[in-house]
Amino acid sequence: MRLAKVIGTVVATRKEESLTGFKLLVIQEIDPLGKREVKNRLVAVDTLGAGEGDIVLWVVGGAARVVSEEHRKAPLDVAIVGIIDSVDTYDE
Amino acid sequence: MRLAKVIGTVVATRKEESLTGFKLLVIQEIDPLGKREVKNRLVAVDTLGAGEGDIVLWVVGGAARVVSEEHRKAPLDVAIVGIIDSVDTYDE
Amino acid sequence: MRLAKVIGTVVATRKEESLTGFKLLVIQEIDPLGKREVKNRLVAVDTLGAGEGDIVLWVVGGAARVVSEEHRKAPLDVAIVGIIDSVDTYDE
Amino acid sequence: MRLAKVIGTVVATRKEESLTGFKLLVIQEIDPLGKREVKNRLVAVDTLGAGEGDIVLWVVGGAARVVSEEHRKAPLDVAIVGIIDSVDTYDE
Amino acid sequence: MRLAKVIGTVVATRKEESLTGFKLLVIQEIDPLGKREVKNRLVAVDTLGAGEGDIVLWVVGGAARVVSEEHRKAPLDVAIVGIIDSVDTYDE
Repeated sequence: MRLAKVIGTVVATRKEESLTGFKLLVIQEIDPLGKREVKNRLVAVDTLGAGEGDIVLWVVGGAARVVSEEHRKAPLDVAIVGIIDSVDTYDE
Repeated sequence: MRLAKVIGTVVATRKEESLTGFKLLVIQEIDPLGKREVKNRLVAVDTLGAGEGDIVLWVVGGAARVVSEEHRKAPLDVAIVGIIDSVDTYDE
Repeated sequence: MRLAKVIGTVVATRKEESLTGFKLLVIQEIDPLGKREVKNRLVAVDTLGAGEGDIVLWVVGGAARVVSEEHRKAPLDVAIVGIIDSVDTYDE
Repeated sequence: MRLAKVIGTVVATRKEESLTGFKLLVIQEIDPLGKREVKNRLVAVDTLGAGEGDIVLWVVGGAARVVSEEHRKAPLDVAIVGIIDSVDTYDE
Repeated sequence: MRLAKVIGTVVATRKEESLTGFKLLVIQEIDPLGKREVKNRLVAVDTLGAGEGDIVLWVVGGAARVVSEEHRKAPLDVAIVGIIDSVDTYDE
């Protein structure tokens, strides 16, 4: 599981029917410590109501389809599964 | 899920029988913000009628075989699952 | 399987219901030989009681959901599966 | 799916029994456009009769075990699924 | 599938119960041609009796759990599936 910031949305009218109804967000991966710039940007399915600027927890692969019966039948490989309140790291 | 531009096609006469009938496109991954050059080029199965220059949404792994019963039985790991109309990103 | 050091925790009040009850730790991947800095930081589910500074063994993908029936139903893709006592490498 | 060139073979007498009978080829990933050097070299299972210098289409992960009932029972994660006749890219 | 050299062992007393009895080896990925240094070091489950300095064939992901019924129930994602006798590459 990794962290990301929600930075946009994607619109796709022509798509696999099983993807209909899923909100597609553009997310930018972030380092949990905020110390390192991560340039990886992806498109994630969201069913938690994540919005602009939210820091989210996301998964890849089969995990993304475990979320619900609708996820299970849809060709998706990245899903938002949590909205982060805080990251606490130990003093180093 | 990631974005890519359709840049070509691939022909393979000798192949696993379950791949017969699938259109194989060469795609070049692109950054959703268009800010960063991504050099990753792959071969993807397409059943949406994507063509030259289209910006597509694609998935990897098991997600690529969720698309249909034919996909499920074929040894494929990259599939186009949407054709992008627009990417909207928040002001930064 | 890879090694990592536990460096923090993550709190997410809004999340997929099946993730409720799982402890979410921030881990930093480490090289088994300690010779190379690895900058990869992730969020992992922990059910072994790993704590600050522990060196842990972690898995990704479907392996993370093999751990228990609760893991199987939750959208998670990184799990801690062992706490390391020692790494012994042969003289080179 | 990606492209590769067949560059060698691997012999392993001691191996998982379910791998017996599979031909193991060394492949070197190539860029579909031939514009970029890719240094990734892997070992792939082949059942199509690919030989020295052939350009092949290969898959990773679960897709590699979809090929046949024998593949399904064997611990393999890279398989050749096509032999490429031609790659056609649009003028840019 | 990739090649690696066995370079050490890992001891973890506290671990998922289903991992009990598995030997955990530290492996260092190697290039099949020996031309390129690969710095990737992992922990792999071994049931073939691989030892110090052996060159092994290993798999990742679900493939690692196909090996046996015990593997199937354990949270592991890297397994040694062969011990290499020789790598033969064509003249280039």
